[in-house]
Amino acid sequence: MSRRLYELAGADPARRFSPYCWRTVMALAHKGLEFEGVPWRFTDKDVIAFSGQGLVPVLIDGERTIADSWQIALYLDTHYPERPLLDSEQARGTTYAFKFWCEQNVHPALTRIILLDLFANLHDKDKAYFRESREKRFGMTLEQFGADRPAGLVALRKALDSVRQVLVTQAYIGGAQPGYADYILFGAFQWARVMSPARLLEPDDPMYAWRERMLDLYQGLARNALGYPVWA
Amino acid sequence: MSRRLYELAGADPARRFSPYCWRTVMALAHKGLEFEGVPWRFTDKDVIAFSGQGLVPVLIDGERTIADSWQIALYLDTHYPERPLLDSEQARGTTYAFKFWCEQNVHPALTRIILLDLFANLHDKDKAYFRESREKRFGMTLEQFGADRPAGLVALRKALDSVRQVLVTQAYIGGAQPGYADYILFGAFQWARVMSPARLLEPDDPMYAWRERMLDLYQGLARNALGYPVWA
Repeated sequence: MSRRLYELAGADPARRFSPYCWRTVMALAHKGLEFEGVPWRFTDKDVIAFSGQGLVPVLIDGERTIADSWQIALYLDTHYPERPLLDSEQARGTTYAFKFWCEQNVHPALTRIILLDLFANLHDKDKAYFRESREKRFGMTLEQFGADRPAGLVALRKALDSVRQVLVTQAYIGGAQPGYADYILFGAFQWARVMSPARLLEPDDPMYAWRERMLDLYQGLARNALGYPVWA
Repeated sequence: MSRRLYELAGADPARRFSPYCWRTVMALAHKGLEFEGVPWRFTDKDVIAFSGQGLVPVLIDGERTIADSWQIALYLDTHYPERPLLDSEQARGTTYAFKFWCEQNVHPALTRIILLDLFANLHDKDKAYFRESREKRFGMTLEQFGADRPAGLVALRKALDSVRQVLVTQAYIGGAQPGYADYILFGAFQWARVMSPARLLEPDDPMYAWRERMLDLYQGLARNALGYPVWA
């Protein structure tokens, strides 16, 4: 196939966990575009050196190489304009803010909850890199950072308040159909689901029903991915 | 004029300070719609009882009465579709989330900074109502809540991170032109500007240049409103 996506994988190559890669996987499904997923690990920098940088997702679409999930979304809307991921100029701007909000609020809260499970599921060759880079970022050991899961859960549920209010009145953040903002936030939940059995949401939370809808999209694409059932 | 907007005012009836009313004022200007602003105070519940609720903004447009700033925005886009405030279904969904985010993060941080100035500028007849309702909400006295301005400033600048990143690459949250998300966030800044001389942003902050652009819109509509110059 001439369309390939480099995706972050754990010890098991089928365990694809990057929240950024999941945005792209859902975006490709949204467009109805098939692709071959290629497992990649943090330390495989040389494997994607051709992309001019060292992070995934990296999409190869025929002759083109695109890195960065946001750039890939823009690229897909430009080259495959049907069923837009971002359906207007304002949608692009507000979703761009939503992306940063998610990365600055939802990701850190989830990290606190899933970090130790995530570390356990990493490929052995990635563990030293991950420990060193994250401990530098957090200013503490992984074990210290991941020690207070309840605090992470409180932070997560609070961070989600603004989205929760939207999902009381509509099925998706994008409206009646999912938009790229949905994929951004869902990518974070799927990241957690693939790496950790931690329960994040209560069934009576509107976020829970939304996550179920997202898991059902595209013939259960995300639900069928290797991970932990959200409910035991 | 057959279009009137009830707007929250301070002791000086020209001091119009509600962040929600400013959203509507900017939205009306965005549409090029003229209106007569009617000063209203918190305790004038009977004056707007005809709207079926007790908060402003309340817009009277010919035969129609619309309360709630978000409902007014939707109403304006339906009845005056040119130059949409929300230019797509996704834009509406993500801006709705943005609204809740702003009210849950930016408003509380600003409140902590401006509360005592705001209280001083209220009409005397509103002061007992305001003190009682807010002290109940905060679980402490106004003076206690407003005592740590630096903490509010830190919270504000942190909350703004996600929007700041967008404004590094584009003029408005909405893109090349302001959209309703811009008016939502600007309403909060204008609320502060009208009631408090507190300095909120540094000139090298991309948010600062954005606020300047917002103040310049529609012949300096917001800049010319009674308030405090942002820079002495």
